[in-house]
Amino acid sequence: MKIIHTINELRQCVQQKRKQNVRIGLVPTMGALHAGHGSLIKAAVKECDYVIVTIFVNPTQFGPGEDFEKYPRTLQSDAAFCQQLGADIIFAPSAEEMYPVEQLTWVNVEKLTSGLCGVSRPGHFRGVTTVCTKLFNIARADIAYFGQKDAQQAIVIQRMVRDLNMTLEICVCPIIREEDGLAMSSRNKYLSPDERKRAICLHEALSYCRTQITGGQTRTELLIEGMKQIPLSNQGEIDYVSIVDPQTLDPLEKIETQALVLLAVYIGKTRLIDNLLIDLNTL
Amino acid sequence: MKIIHTINELRQCVQQKRKQNVRIGLVPTMGALHAGHGSLIKAAVKECDYVIVTIFVNPTQFGPGEDFEKYPRTLQSDAAFCQQLGADIIFAPSAEEMYPVEQLTWVNVEKLTSGLCGVSRPGHFRGVTTVCTKLFNIARADIAYFGQKDAQQAIVIQRMVRDLNMTLEICVCPIIREEDGLAMSSRNKYLSPDERKRAICLHEALSYCRTQITGGQTRTELLIEGMKQIPLSNQGEIDYVSIVDPQTLDPLEKIETQALVLLAVYIGKTRLIDNLLIDLNTL
Repeated sequence: MKIIHTINELRQCVQQKRKQNVRIGLVPTMGALHAGHGSLIKAAVKECDYVIVTIFVNPTQFGPGEDFEKYPRTLQSDAAFCQQLGADIIFAPSAEEMYPVEQLTWVNVEKLTSGLCGVSRPGHFRGVTTVCTKLFNIARADIAYFGQKDAQQAIVIQRMVRDLNMTLEICVCPIIREEDGLAMSSRNKYLSPDERKRAICLHEALSYCRTQITGGQTRTELLIEGMKQIPLSNQGEIDYVSIVDPQTLDPLEKIETQALVLLAVYIGKTRLIDNLLIDLNTL
Repeated sequence: MKIIHTINELRQCVQQKRKQNVRIGLVPTMGALHAGHGSLIKAAVKECDYVIVTIFVNPTQFGPGEDFEKYPRTLQSDAAFCQQLGADIIFAPSAEEMYPVEQLTWVNVEKLTSGLCGVSRPGHFRGVTTVCTKLFNIARADIAYFGQKDAQQAIVIQRMVRDLNMTLEICVCPIIREEDGLAMSSRNKYLSPDERKRAICLHEALSYCRTQITGGQTRTELLIEGMKQIPLSNQGEIDYVSIVDPQTLDPLEKIETQALVLLAVYIGKTRLIDNLLIDLNTL
């Protein structure tokens, strides 16, 4: 496995592989890899001939006062992890390599980015869609892997690819959880032992919601109120709890067939997100 | 030469050619082709193995009250012209083919699009950069050809390609003019015989400016005033006359080495643009 830091080197590797007509998989990450990322890499290794993992803590998707500086950077252990899983290349560019001059060009997905995480993180999705466009153009992969944990991001990226006629496929892989149900996230590292215990309230809220829906409750106002009052109460500061249409991200009043239940909660200073895809036909 | 109307058909043609390792050239146009487009197609035919001309009157780059509806559509004669010049494919999609659902994703180049034509045509460049991104992703060409006549557009596209790490090269070809100096434009068709005569004031203003600079005048305020008072006076309604840095498009007070002189003038209801690249070292 190679670790590459420059765009030109990556382009050369990819060009060589393209000539051999192989299927190229891309796993874009910010590093601090955990089993969630691992599942994406495994899927890529299984389905592709050549797997590129990008590790780049992208400054343009962090807002002022967010955790860009303290975001965990663990390239050495990340590299060992990728190698073990069978990745072929790690692309770990510097910020200067990715943004050598002032970035004037931005890719923005309207509407889908205005609610949910877009409210408390203005500019976040613009940074994500722009850096993904750059990485897609550099890697020229056939397929890129994203996690369902960042549900809004996955939906935004899929829409961007469709709207801009990008030629790659997007594969969204299921959320990977700790034994007690906490969704894997690089930001879990920030949690104190006490916060770590409280953090399971997100998963508990989603489980509560699923139970209520299985029991016949489909009015979202009541479902949201229930999540706020029972499992989330006193565990952290709620950013949002929403139940939306999984395609449009528009809030639903009543669950008809499909719904996406999303929440963002501050546990101490750490903002955690989780979500649950509901389909009444298969519940 | 083939005329293709669907994205899938074009993708198939391109994929086949890509396997043969040929150099693919793209000439994006809105049709109503004239000798200016002809020079782009000729350059592409000379430098590439496979030349795609796109003909698409892109609705998203027209503002309300602009000439989208009446923009000339002359596919049959355009096709004959392209064939004669040696193009391999015309891609002429419908608006529904290019925008099958509401376009939520937009590519925007900041700063470079805020002045000049961006002032009187808000949203225009966003439409251009977005449709070019779509066409670039569909055609996957090695090189795309644009005309220097749309100088701001050429600079914006070049910056977009750089900022988003697109893999294609951009070639900007010189302005082609009528015998009396009027820059070729599909919108020249709108001019009445009297307007056609007055339309040469744009070229005359640029010639006047060049003469003044050759004579030693480098203060842009005086150059602009001169153009407004002498050749442009009473010929049409001036939208803007600007002298800017050719990289940043920032207005210059004094010409040091390079400068871009740009103007936009309404001749009757028809808005015409023209420009002149100045380099004191080679004047």
